[in-house]
Amino acid sequence: MKVEIITTGTELLLGEIINTNFTYLAQELNRRGFDVLYQTTVGDNPERMEAVLALAASRADVVITSGGLGPTRGDITKELVAKFCGTDLYMNLEVWNHIHTLLSKRNICIAANNDKQALVPSGAVVLHNETGTAPGLVLEHGKTLFVMLPGPPFELKYVCQHELFPYLEKKFPELGIIKSRTLKLKGIGESNAAEMLDDLVTHQTNPTIALYARNGSILVRLTAKAASTEEADAMLDAMQEKAEAVIGSYVFGYDGETLPEVLGRELLARNRTIAFAESCTGGLASSLMTDVPGSSEYVKGSVVSYTNEVKNLVIHVSKTTLDRKGAVSEEAALEMARGVREVIGSDMAVSITGLAGPGGGTRKKPVGLVYIAVNDEQGEACRKFNFSGTRTQIKNRAAMAALGFALDRLKEHTVQKISEETINHHGADR
Amino acid sequence: MKVEIITTGTELLLGEIINTNFTYLAQELNRRGFDVLYQTTVGDNPERMEAVLALAASRADVVITSGGLGPTRGDITKELVAKFCGTDLYMNLEVWNHIHTLLSKRNICIAANNDKQALVPSGAVVLHNETGTAPGLVLEHGKTLFVMLPGPPFELKYVCQHELFPYLEKKFPELGIIKSRTLKLKGIGESNAAEMLDDLVTHQTNPTIALYARNGSILVRLTAKAASTEEADAMLDAMQEKAEAVIGSYVFGYDGETLPEVLGRELLARNRTIAFAESCTGGLASSLMTDVPGSSEYVKGSVVSYTNEVKNLVIHVSKTTLDRKGAVSEEAALEMARGVREVIGSDMAVSITGLAGPGGGTRKKPVGLVYIAVNDEQGEACRKFNFSGTRTQIKNRAAMAALGFALDRLKEHTVQKISEETINHHGADR
Repeated sequence: MKVEIITTGTELLLGEIINTNFTYLAQELNRRGFDVLYQTTVGDNPERMEAVLALAASRADVVITSGGLGPTRGDITKELVAKFCGTDLYMNLEVWNHIHTLLSKRNICIAANNDKQALVPSGAVVLHNETGTAPGLVLEHGKTLFVMLPGPPFELKYVCQHELFPYLEKKFPELGIIKSRTLKLKGIGESNAAEMLDDLVTHQTNPTIALYARNGSILVRLTAKAASTEEADAMLDAMQEKAEAVIGSYVFGYDGETLPEVLGRELLARNRTIAFAESCTGGLASSLMTDVPGSSEYVKGSVVSYTNEVKNLVIHVSKTTLDRKGAVSEEAALEMARGVREVIGSDMAVSITGLAGPGGGTRKKPVGLVYIAVNDEQGEACRKFNFSGTRTQIKNRAAMAALGFALDRLKEHTVQKISEETINHHGADR
Repeated sequence: MKVEIITTGTELLLGEIINTNFTYLAQELNRRGFDVLYQTTVGDNPERMEAVLALAASRADVVITSGGLGPTRGDITKELVAKFCGTDLYMNLEVWNHIHTLLSKRNICIAANNDKQALVPSGAVVLHNETGTAPGLVLEHGKTLFVMLPGPPFELKYVCQHELFPYLEKKFPELGIIKSRTLKLKGIGESNAAEMLDDLVTHQTNPTIALYARNGSILVRLTAKAASTEEADAMLDAMQEKAEAVIGSYVFGYDGETLPEVLGRELLARNRTIAFAESCTGGLASSLMTDVPGSSEYVKGSVVSYTNEVKNLVIHVSKTTLDRKGAVSEEAALEMARGVREVIGSDMAVSITGLAGPGGGTRKKPVGLVYIAVNDEQGEACRKFNFSGTRTQIKNRAAMAALGFALDRLKEHTVQKISEETINHHGADR
């Protein structure tokens, strides 16, 4: 089933807004087995828009437009599609009622041009839009299915999820359904993960398995195409088992879950509190943890010890350590974690000390060298990392590694000293 | 001058990446006086791509492609454009040398297919790409100018800024040149700024003046179109003077400058150090400050006091204050700033305490209520804010407001107690 997506609007052509509608539609339609072959952006100009519609109808089975359904005179999509299909517009009372109810609920005066939005091409299926005044519309003409969607991304997504996708699944049952599941990894770089999964990625066609790097985490996405939801779920379960047999020890969560959320949940489940001593990350680990609503239940506080003076005076890293080993050392990291746990009075403490760059690196201590230590009831441990990237990337990778270390530690429940364990991380893996 | 932009690549049609190349090109070309009338996305399919090129050549004067210049067999843009223009490809030695030098510098083995990237259509102008192996290309055919650009956004921008835009300005001098200047504001919400600048925004056509909100700052962009750089600069100077007569007191910097950079520079110039006591921002203000290289010169450290216990024990906020006024109060903010300045030993300290939500708000202390205090040699001061937005937006707005307050304070040099000064901020202004 060939699809062309036409996004309209002068603000797109001026580069004032990014075309996220297209990305969303392309993703969702491809997942559902449609072949999105073309996407065209055109302004609110009748001649150009007519030509674009005719071309699309000539080369695609399904033509989807976004935008141009508003109340102004510049909104011409519905009128031009109706004209192309040789059909008239009529006042749809259901849509008219919805518009009037919605506007009066929002205390908006109903303008004469709002009635224009209640005009529907004869023979069209109305896709109800609970979130706005412009309904979606489906109109069949010959072998072409025209779908008109409202332009505001929030409204477009609502109409797609609640109306269009169920409609398309019913209309084209032969396409089957598509389901995805994402495994989220920590403590491993993208190329190492890719190497470990190489066999599966190369030989799997359904479900497919694909790797992505996003915000310091590695994502493994499994996508199954099946006749039913149950079948897709069973395929995903089987594939997940295969993938986790290889990289299961790095999986911290699934789908929308973030590392701060998962760590927070595990802390909460164990009734444990956490504190951070941050040097090179400058407060980022604490900030990420506190992005999660309710994090005040388990984050007690942190000390950003950006100078040696603060490391010594506030969290009691010894002057001997700072002088002899330096602030970026295993010893300093261990003392920072010990000190901040004592000062803040948390059950667990994590310290991060390293070189975020771009300056300050030496041969022995290059930019990207980061020590992360944990101190808790079970004792203490330190890991050494070599991150690559820009200053903010190194900060982000170090902060995520610290949360990952804390999560490992929580799940381990063992008294041991992991020392000088080297993990080469994303971009630094050779 | 009519422009069509063709973005190629299966990953675009799959919705795996957002088409930021188009947005960038549209913005820059419209600013330069070109009319971007169409944008088409098509996959790496020879027949479809050929048809799209032919259509574009029939309806635009300048056809710009992005992507499809890589070393793989799927990269077909250059070959198809050359075929359409009836010209051959030859091995360009300069490009070949650049590719080999770049790859050996990056310690990458040179594969046979890299040589494909050194093939250039006869008669084409090469747009040098310092950042990658695919050069940009310009090829004239009849009345159509074909411009081929590499797909990676970083490379595309490099080639545009350093090669394509200067080339186009020279080729189409009648379009004139475009220069922009951005004033960056703090301590004012978007709608208040819009109201103050309304007269200028409405009546100015050249230079134009436009408002944007980005990452907690308000941006005012002045754009002048002129025959020469000198003329544009003079127009921008005059316009900046007009704008600053209205909103000058809110301007903290220009163009690429960020608030953490400007605050850092002012601290450095005065040889002053800073510390933060963060509650609702959870370390974000410190993290933003330490995103700036060299910030260890003036950021001494911070305490994230996420619980009352830490506020009391670590930075000495009195139990009386916490019990009677609560952690979200002017009194607590002032004591936090005082306490952290003493504990960290900095010249200046800034505290932030508030409700980031989404839960925890009351009628008297709603979500978004934030107190920010400063303590320094001049004394102390507190400001009260009502931010709106999501949890992370409120965190971001509060952190930026704290940096803005510190900057004001540094520049004031006065001993005064600014108390209960209410600033309604972005989204909360009525």
